[in-house]
Amino acid sequence: MAIRERVFNAIITCFKRHGAEVIDTPVFELKETLTGKYGEDSKLIYDLKDQGGELLSLRYDLTVPFARYLAMNKITNIKRYHIAKVYRRDNPAMTRGRYREFYQCDFDIAGQFDPMIPDAECLKIVHEILSDLQLGDFLIKVNDRRILDGMFAVCGVPDSKFRTICSTVDKLDKMPWEEVRSEMVGEKGLSPEAADRIGEYVQLHGGLDLIERLLQDPKLSQNKLAKEGLGDMKLLFEYLTLFGITGKVSFDLSLARGLDYYTGVIYEAVLLQGERPWEEPVSVGSVAGGGRYDRLVGMFDPKGRKVPCVGVSIGIERIFSILEQRVEASEEKIRTTETQVLVASAQKKLLEERLKLISELWDAGIKAEVLYKKNPKLLSQLQYCEDTGIPLVAIVGEQELKDGVVKLRVVATREEVNVRRESLVEEIRMRTSRP
Amino acid sequence: MAIRERVFNAIITCFKRHGAEVIDTPVFELKETLTGKYGEDSKLIYDLKDQGGELLSLRYDLTVPFARYLAMNKITNIKRYHIAKVYRRDNPAMTRGRYREFYQCDFDIAGQFDPMIPDAECLKIVHEILSDLQLGDFLIKVNDRRILDGMFAVCGVPDSKFRTICSTVDKLDKMPWEEVRSEMVGEKGLSPEAADRIGEYVQLHGGLDLIERLLQDPKLSQNKLAKEGLGDMKLLFEYLTLFGITGKVSFDLSLARGLDYYTGVIYEAVLLQGERPWEEPVSVGSVAGGGRYDRLVGMFDPKGRKVPCVGVSIGIERIFSILEQRVEASEEKIRTTETQVLVASAQKKLLEERLKLISELWDAGIKAEVLYKKNPKLLSQLQYCEDTGIPLVAIVGEQELKDGVVKLRVVATREEVNVRRESLVEEIRMRTSRP
Repeated sequence: MAIRERVFNAIITCFKRHGAEVIDTPVFELKETLTGKYGEDSKLIYDLKDQGGELLSLRYDLTVPFARYLAMNKITNIKRYHIAKVYRRDNPAMTRGRYREFYQCDFDIAGQFDPMIPDAECLKIVHEILSDLQLGDFLIKVNDRRILDGMFAVCGVPDSKFRTICSTVDKLDKMPWEEVRSEMVGEKGLSPEAADRIGEYVQLHGGLDLIERLLQDPKLSQNKLAKEGLGDMKLLFEYLTLFGITGKVSFDLSLARGLDYYTGVIYEAVLLQGERPWEEPVSVGSVAGGGRYDRLVGMFDPKGRKVPCVGVSIGIERIFSILEQRVEASEEKIRTTETQVLVASAQKKLLEERLKLISELWDAGIKAEVLYKKNPKLLSQLQYCEDTGIPLVAIVGEQELKDGVVKLRVVATREEVNVRRESLVEEIRMRTSRP
Repeated sequence: MAIRERVFNAIITCFKRHGAEVIDTPVFELKETLTGKYGEDSKLIYDLKDQGGELLSLRYDLTVPFARYLAMNKITNIKRYHIAKVYRRDNPAMTRGRYREFYQCDFDIAGQFDPMIPDAECLKIVHEILSDLQLGDFLIKVNDRRILDGMFAVCGVPDSKFRTICSTVDKLDKMPWEEVRSEMVGEKGLSPEAADRIGEYVQLHGGLDLIERLLQDPKLSQNKLAKEGLGDMKLLFEYLTLFGITGKVSFDLSLARGLDYYTGVIYEAVLLQGERPWEEPVSVGSVAGGGRYDRLVGMFDPKGRKVPCVGVSIGIERIFSILEQRVEASEEKIRTTETQVLVASAQKKLLEERLKLISELWDAGIKAEVLYKKNPKLLSQLQYCEDTGIPLVAIVGEQELKDGVVKLRVVATREEVNVRRESLVEEIRMRTSRP
């Protein structure tokens, strides 16, 4: 949790830096709200038991609830973040940070705006967060659903198979092309020729040069959707150049993303492994993903009014698992509390004095603890500080009480000074303020 | 959410001041974990649908999951806080802050310690939080399950009816004694004489004086449980005197609390209404509650090993609803974002320059926004600042670009100054730092 708090802070700081407000939605949604939004993954949705009343399910992500919230409250314009848990009836894989209950950290921009400006900001955010967290080298892959659909069309995929073939392309980060091809042809019934044509496109990745080349591609350039997508991709890369982040962004035709609701640009950030030979390569895949979904809000509006949206979700559990492994490997000791001082006594029968002193410290805003024993040994009080990392001990004793002082001991150096009672708060603050 | 963030911060600050670490448990528990822990309220538990695998329920509170967590991980000693949502299939009452999904903010101390020291700290925490939040006058009622049980025994309640009569006593904060009495006699089958004897005790409330008097009570003082409870209550009040908070604490024999798992001291904080004649009286009941539960962890341990616990739960939804009503009444405008500056332009065709500048500001840690339009009007950019409370506008224009400056405008005063580009970050920081 201590590591988690650090990561959350970095992410929230970034979201706030980009002017987002925070919202919250309930953990359950009407079952029908979630139905038909997640493609093949819908089977992973947790349902609540029918105990009377509406049929409910646990949220599967934060995007569909956000769209439902916008439609229900007739919001056409918002930039918000939401950090909360989502639920999937999946097979957990602890080391890869995959659980049935896990946090998502979402940032989304809803509203009718000029093309690709909010989209570019989402990629800037991914870049800022992954740089801040110092997770090692990373790459943000970018594609566009319209380019994919155009590509499927010119390769001869029937319209009705676009989404299912898209799901298969999405597996390219986990299986080699040969397996993906055989799923397309075998399970999905695509012609081998169409599959092979797809195979040529999906190996392409690059930057502005590739976009320019594809804009000249004799087949793709004839397809309206693909042309639109490529035009916007060009604009996106121009904005990313202004943000100075094209070095870590790759236009990648193999990126598909599984979810049904994307309509435009899509992206996914992956950590690059084994870059440094002296480090153990960490086996984690994508750590952030998102895209544009311009039709989702309209699905929840009674009049079908559309609110274009683009957003990004940070895959924080994978980030946690990497950082936790790193902390374990380093044997760095992480404090789980922030206590500044332990109020202790050297002799017996001083519980009342300890309680009086700690009460003064709490009221002055000092983070303080006391052992819950009437007559604890000084040694066990000092040991407690060693164990929990408390840096200071305020020791009350008969003589000190008479003199109106408290003995302040620095745990690390064993240095002891007598501090006048009225200066104690100031002294503790000074000695525990971070540089 | 902006109000919520403030309240959470106040509460977390207090919990950390008392040396608590933070833990998290899953939103669902095995159904059997929750069974038989909540008395008559068990019917309010949400169950998950049986989709294969274990039968699961949504957590009803944070206390039972905490006890399960301690037993499962063999933890015998911890001071932790947990802020998370819990679920109850209850009738919502929005104005009173009662929902089916709501936050609880729990602080608990687990471990074998000398009597009443951690218990007193829990009450100190309630006192600190309610004082910090400035919710108006409040009172912390305190009782002890052992005193209640002793009282039931000496009043002639059969052992088997202790818990159910306790549930009925718990309703005294919502109904008059006559109704409570008739439930005892009518529904619960208690003899009228026993009910009347209870009626005499439950009207008692006071401080150390009442405790002393009851310790001399010819009937109660003969009952072992009651005597133990009264002895500890006396000790508790001595510690509360050292903490200087007895003024707001009342030993109240009518306090029962509904949950089954309490074994010792119990408490509940209520807001006192209509104290100030010029204020609308706010209709809210208890805003914090808790107590000692020494046997709950043992129920989850295969060998029945006990870990004594005491804790407090802050009823944050009620606090939110009071503060929200207060903000609405005051027409105070609360900002939902923290943006320091809007990057704007006075002329057309400056989108690229705006993006370059905002990228610099983000990278320097400045909270900045830009309108997602190629050529927004200056007026609409200024209006956006008025609407959202952004205090500064950084305006790029042809001339300023040539001169290497940015025009910084203070929204409130309309003052404008030209700032050299390299000093802009410093200037924004200075002008938006809180006093």
